Amino acid sequence: MGMTMTQKILAAHAGLNEVKPGDLIMADLDLVLGNDITAPVAIDVFEGINAETVFDNDKIALVPDHFAPNKDIKAAEQCKKMRLFAKKHDITNYFEIGQMGVEHALLPEKGLVVAGDLVIGADSHTCTYGALGAFSTGVGSTDMAAGMATGKAWFKVPAAIKFVLKGKFNKYVSGKDLILHIIGMIGVDGALYKSMEFVGEGIANLRMDDRFTIANMAIEAGAKNGIFIVDEQTIEYITAHSQKEYTVYAADDDAEYDKIIEIDLSTIKPTVAFPHLPENTRTTDEITEPVYIDQVVIGSCTNGRLSDFAKAAKIFEGRKVAKGIRTIIIPATQKIYLQCMELGYFKTFVEAGATVSAPTCGPCLGGHMGILASGERCVSTTNRNFVGRMGHVDSEVYLANPEVAAASAILGRIADPTELSEKEKL
Amino acid sequence: MGMTMTQKILAAHAGLNEVKPGDLIMADLDLVLGNDITAPVAIDVFEGINAETVFDNDKIALVPDHFAPNKDIKAAEQCKKMRLFAKKHDITNYFEIGQMGVEHALLPEKGLVVAGDLVIGADSHTCTYGALGAFSTGVGSTDMAAGMATGKAWFKVPAAIKFVLKGKFNKYVSGKDLILHIIGMIGVDGALYKSMEFVGEGIANLRMDDRFTIANMAIEAGAKNGIFIVDEQTIEYITAHSQKEYTVYAADDDAEYDKIIEIDLSTIKPTVAFPHLPENTRTTDEITEPVYIDQVVIGSCTNGRLSDFAKAAKIFEGRKVAKGIRTIIIPATQKIYLQCMELGYFKTFVEAGATVSAPTCGPCLGGHMGILASGERCVSTTNRNFVGRMGHVDSEVYLANPEVAAASAILGRIADPTELSEKEKL
Repeated sequence: MGMTMTQKILAAHAGLNEVKPGDLIMADLDLVLGNDITAPVAIDVFEGINAETVFDNDKIALVPDHFAPNKDIKAAEQCKKMRLFAKKHDITNYFEIGQMGVEHALLPEKGLVVAGDLVIGADSHTCTYGALGAFSTGVGSTDMAAGMATGKAWFKVPAAIKFVLKGKFNKYVSGKDLILHIIGMIGVDGALYKSMEFVGEGIANLRMDDRFTIANMAIEAGAKNGIFIVDEQTIEYITAHSQKEYTVYAADDDAEYDKIIEIDLSTIKPTVAFPHLPENTRTTDEITEPVYIDQVVIGSCTNGRLSDFAKAAKIFEGRKVAKGIRTIIIPATQKIYLQCMELGYFKTFVEAGATVSAPTCGPCLGGHMGILASGERCVSTTNRNFVGRMGHVDSEVYLANPEVAAASAILGRIADPTELSEKEKL
Repeated sequence: MGMTMTQKILAAHAGLNEVKPGDLIMADLDLVLGNDITAPVAIDVFEGINAETVFDNDKIALVPDHFAPNKDIKAAEQCKKMRLFAKKHDITNYFEIGQMGVEHALLPEKGLVVAGDLVIGADSHTCTYGALGAFSTGVGSTDMAAGMATGKAWFKVPAAIKFVLKGKFNKYVSGKDLILHIIGMIGVDGALYKSMEFVGEGIANLRMDDRFTIANMAIEAGAKNGIFIVDEQTIEYITAHSQKEYTVYAADDDAEYDKIIEIDLSTIKPTVAFPHLPENTRTTDEITEPVYIDQVVIGSCTNGRLSDFAKAAKIFEGRKVAKGIRTIIIPATQKIYLQCMELGYFKTFVEAGATVSAPTCGPCLGGHMGILASGERCVSTTNRNFVGRMGHVDSEVYLANPEVAAASAILGRIADPTELSEKEKL
């Protein structure tokens, strides 16, 4: 029987010629990731099992991004624990404040993940690296600890759903809308413990940032991972960012899929996930009653990359944030920060009345830098809108793409960019 | 008997020809200030006394700067309370995220304080505006509430200490060093409930930002207020920032002072306040043992202005932050943010390995954006180094000017800028 992309990567890392869905395998890890929330727990486990050394100090990445720069004493102590561990074990890829960024934007940028890699991370959005043709998935802190000690992890081989993409996006539509559309269609458990494999001629029309966004939110459909075919763009990205050797795994022609879903990208519309699940999607033209908002956040591992800010800047250019709307821009990494600044995006944002934060996951998970009070509503380019995700249990998060978020900031309500006219221009 | 500058302003606002130290007077207020920590308490009091309207909706300033952008749900609820109050009472000078900044940098920048004003603020560093020849002082939230309701406040007229300045600073010395030097000399209660009046030919050699820094820390010597004579620079600043009418109050020739202290600015050296009091000062040449550090913060109402970052940028230019040192740059206002960005300072900071935060008081008071863990040390351009001020009770804060802070970030220990050589250059 043929194998999917995911199955091939797992087989190769387990030293097996073939795996099939449901198989329990032990596979070698190319990278083990942790952040300031999950790594301290993993470190306790690591020390609890008397592990003396890490399996490979080049293959562990530790990123203080969630509650950092330290939001309180507890966060400071957690970061300190991770920092001391990194020092003790001479972890090459520990990223200090000033070097760091949101982990899932940072690792590809630093070239730490390439096609064919097998990566685990103690963070649910570790699936982001599927954009590069890698198998990557979120694990608990205990698995992270075992991974740091042994360089191996157990996996149950997942079945897969194939998404065959064709066509290209219309204006104001991007990767975020596609993945929200898919989650709306199949539900938050629609791909439970399966691989979401993205193939088809439409992939060529997706820039890498779109692919990162789509793979990033595979977990929001319950998937074990999301993964894209490797094309010229992928190779270009990898060779521009990494010295690592990569391997391209293509699915066999006779690979089995639980389901095959064809999507014409030109049919996708700007899509917003209403509270309190990412599957509660409506296209902007389905929003008939005005949804007034208090805050807009543009950033995160989902939509905190250069092209996201380029798009938002184009919307904000010459316009102003509506009175009373807090608009918080959070570039995902220091490099993205620098690029946005040099391209004039920050000038546009600040002049529009937005504030620009240092890189952090911050408000996405209710961490800091824009937490909501009761009754408040936020349009956010982040990935989850669960009850209380961004603060008070009586607050609401609406997930959207950066252009919809920017247009909403300007009009003070959830808005499609086409609703903006020259009249908002200064 | 003649009156000091402070006494003249108080008398004028009380409708009296003369006041003397110890007099209890009721004076009219030109501005009442509150932030996201103190204003919510004042609002409760205001509503508790059934005050229906504020005395003047143009003369109240509300700034969410301490725990904002909201660090947690509690902070979000506090900001919400202030925001709703501002809306209900149509407060002209409520500054939302994206418009706001650290209050004591923001208010002068927005032209809300001019020479001769009488300002109270529910924040101890309200004394900052003495740089403009205004009387301004910190009060509790109850006084703030009464001030918002009545436009008046009770004061006990302070006695004064006169500081006669001459000469000019040497390189790498600025207002921060002078005020630390003074606090080191007279102690943290050296000016208890007195005015610190700054006069003399040396004032002309102090730029406005130096004066803001000096007046800002008058409270750290226990003073009721700090105040500078008004000169051409002051008038230039006021007319560039404000439409308000100003009044220049000069002390009478026969004004009485408890003490007169003459200081030659050319004798002041870069000065650092060691834990855990601002009076524990040492000049950098007195620091013989290396003091290794973990974090550097450049910002706050004390040293978060344009010239502070200009100086720091000059130190960082072509150099790198030492490995392991978290360096956090926090411009005090959105305007300063924009100016620093346009002048290339942020590029310098980020390339050096520092991170740039959105405007906030943040770490200065242990709020967020750089809190210390146990055993950690921070060199900070802020104003207080009390036990636990910036986080854990077992952390340490060393107060310094921006150039010393930058040099310390580069060398990883408290350092004088003259210790830097071309060898740190890239």
